[in-house]
Amino acid sequence: MTLPLQFNNPNPPIITLTTDFGEKDGYVGTMRGVILNICPTANLANLSQDIPPQDIRTAAFVLYQAFSYYPPGTVHCVVVDPGVGSKRRAIAVRTDRGIFVCPDNGILSLVLAAGDINIVEAVTLTNPEYQLPNVSATFHGRDIFAPAAAHIANGVPLSKLGPAAINLVKLNFDLKPQNGNCQVIHVDRFGNLILNITVNDVDNPERIAFKIGREIVHTLCRTFADVAEGELLAYVGSLRDHVEIAIRNGNAALALGVKVGDTIQIIESDIEA
Amino acid sequence: MTLPLQFNNPNPPIITLTTDFGEKDGYVGTMRGVILNICPTANLANLSQDIPPQDIRTAAFVLYQAFSYYPPGTVHCVVVDPGVGSKRRAIAVRTDRGIFVCPDNGILSLVLAAGDINIVEAVTLTNPEYQLPNVSATFHGRDIFAPAAAHIANGVPLSKLGPAAINLVKLNFDLKPQNGNCQVIHVDRFGNLILNITVNDVDNPERIAFKIGREIVHTLCRTFADVAEGELLAYVGSLRDHVEIAIRNGNAALALGVKVGDTIQIIESDIEA
Amino acid sequence: MTLPLQFNNPNPPIITLTTDFGEKDGYVGTMRGVILNICPTANLANLSQDIPPQDIRTAAFVLYQAFSYYPPGTVHCVVVDPGVGSKRRAIAVRTDRGIFVCPDNGILSLVLAAGDINIVEAVTLTNPEYQLPNVSATFHGRDIFAPAAAHIANGVPLSKLGPAAINLVKLNFDLKPQNGNCQVIHVDRFGNLILNITVNDVDNPERIAFKIGREIVHTLCRTFADVAEGELLAYVGSLRDHVEIAIRNGNAALALGVKVGDTIQIIESDIEA
Repeated sequence: MTLPLQFNNPNPPIITLTTDFGEKDGYVGTMRGVILNICPTANLANLSQDIPPQDIRTAAFVLYQAFSYYPPGTVHCVVVDPGVGSKRRAIAVRTDRGIFVCPDNGILSLVLAAGDINIVEAVTLTNPEYQLPNVSATFHGRDIFAPAAAHIANGVPLSKLGPAAINLVKLNFDLKPQNGNCQVIHVDRFGNLILNITVNDVDNPERIAFKIGREIVHTLCRTFADVAEGELLAYVGSLRDHVEIAIRNGNAALALGVKVGDTIQIIESDIEA
Repeated sequence: MTLPLQFNNPNPPIITLTTDFGEKDGYVGTMRGVILNICPTANLANLSQDIPPQDIRTAAFVLYQAFSYYPPGTVHCVVVDPGVGSKRRAIAVRTDRGIFVCPDNGILSLVLAAGDINIVEAVTLTNPEYQLPNVSATFHGRDIFAPAAAHIANGVPLSKLGPAAINLVKLNFDLKPQNGNCQVIHVDRFGNLILNITVNDVDNPERIAFKIGREIVHTLCRTFADVAEGELLAYVGSLRDHVEIAIRNGNAALALGVKVGDTIQIIESDIEA
Repeated sequence: MTLPLQFNNPNPPIITLTTDFGEKDGYVGTMRGVILNICPTANLANLSQDIPPQDIRTAAFVLYQAFSYYPPGTVHCVVVDPGVGSKRRAIAVRTDRGIFVCPDNGILSLVLAAGDINIVEAVTLTNPEYQLPNVSATFHGRDIFAPAAAHIANGVPLSKLGPAAINLVKLNFDLKPQNGNCQVIHVDRFGNLILNITVNDVDNPERIAFKIGREIVHTLCRTFADVAEGELLAYVGSLRDHVEIAIRNGNAALALGVKVGDTIQIIESDIEA
């Protein structure tokens, strides 16, 4: 457990960055500098810097979608941190599918609920040796999280960064439909709606339909090309069998006026697939 | 032809990414993970993740503008893919100026029309050994294109990825003016209009002018600083001698109400340059 | 001074990019290709490609905020260049805190005023050997700045790139409050206002307050969490002790209708901190 992570690994360590900072102000650019100062061989990969400001749930979703495609030695530095400067903890969590460095605000809720991941150790980032010399009260991305991610990528054992952290904060995500209703858990750039229902939750997938306002979307298609351009469809998406609703070459969220958190009714279709 | 691409090359392999995914949702971030899992030393370079959704023509243009500035061993992974899940082919095309991994939807039309590029081989990406284990119907960027690009960067010969592909799809781009009219083929972030006319297409460049609605732009300037701030100018742009129209420190597309595909009349100026 | 920069440095050279090009058009993607062609091991780090078009002051600010967090051997390539093609010089400036490659338009004004940085040498980028073969009149980012940055990262001494440059252009930034007023020098993505006043400029920090229209912001808080959600606060920010004004989990610039360059009155509070 105390062996350096990159032990025997001749490849550059991978650090991903997920923030709500955007790229305009150079905040993430500053974090990249901090990381490269400490771990000059780091291969920095963007997950997303365009998380909506303070939107922990979207960050949790983006991380959930991406983490399992990275090598298990990857360090994921995730900073959506409305509680910066308060008593919320800064943590590092090592799992068998990646190491996560982030505020303890529930941002790992979906990743840790994914089912195929196990926590190996978790610590609170309190050791000033692994922080920048002057820690500001408002930019822990630069002063605490980036240095921690870089030191971990260098092989520093988590136990050196601070004491064990237990009882991590969990956000309440409904990952199953309730009372015949499902929920929109993400709206992507294309306006596609990702729902909290997977194909495995459905008894009779040939007969499932979704009621959104006056619109009814019948059955599950395989892909966009199964309907004409501009038509609504439901299909099993690319993310862990979650059902999605889209308009082929269009924007379903705009057309239907739907946003994250909205409820969609599951009904039985009178059309068989 | 079957020698690994990176044979004798001590440098990290370069893979560029061009998509219409944006960075918000982590889709490109997921593709980066897939690539780094397969080719851990890859140097990932962004061409553009901000192609307008499903806009194959803009992607073709961006690629056309950039590819020749990369080393010829570069793998360009290009995913603007409205036909994902349909019968459109996934292809890899090796040329003497770079290897392109993309859907066969015409996205390479401008690159292959550039004149200074030759196809060495092209294959259809059908071999499941070089795809992710579970290929979704809606995210081939992650499941087919990213793995193919990474394996090719590792030196896997194209012939292993699938059978030869012939008759690649070509989009109809007018790269020459017709009947005294030229066309806007791209509008960039600054609102500059890139036209489908090059300085070599013009008989009498000292006398050329462009009529856009009521505005007439006279002669070809050398650069923005040749006119006052806020004034319209035409000039030979930085892209393969294409003529562009701009407003110095302003936005010509907004001011003129012009968009991609619009026609601009070429007239003879009564002012000599 | 003529030793290669990377002499004795086994790590990949770091080149940062700051531009107003955005990522949509592939202009920065093209610059990355030029750099990787010349310096194939370069580790390219984004500072910001989202500087508002032609906004030299914002670029100067972003650079000022980030540069000191990078290793001193880093090459910062900065292209916000409304004067491209005019007589403005292209320069490279080597300091003890990084090497800067940019147009001589004042973009380094804040960095060089930071106080903890010394110029070692500065040159004008006139030697065509270190430029692309065909230099356009409108895209020096690709044709002059990217190649210069890459050659410098390769260890080429600045003196080979051109003759010494003196009297660099300086923009007039008020970095101190005047007549009881301070100025907004940056508005970030969150709508936080960064002011040209540092905590060291304040005689009586327990009694300071800021008057913005009808709103008065009393005293300096430590961080966002010191006020309720939706409330205004002033605090010493993360950037070199500059005072900032924000709304906790809100957007102060929008709520107050304030933008860069606006004046804010400093008053004495009747409330003691």
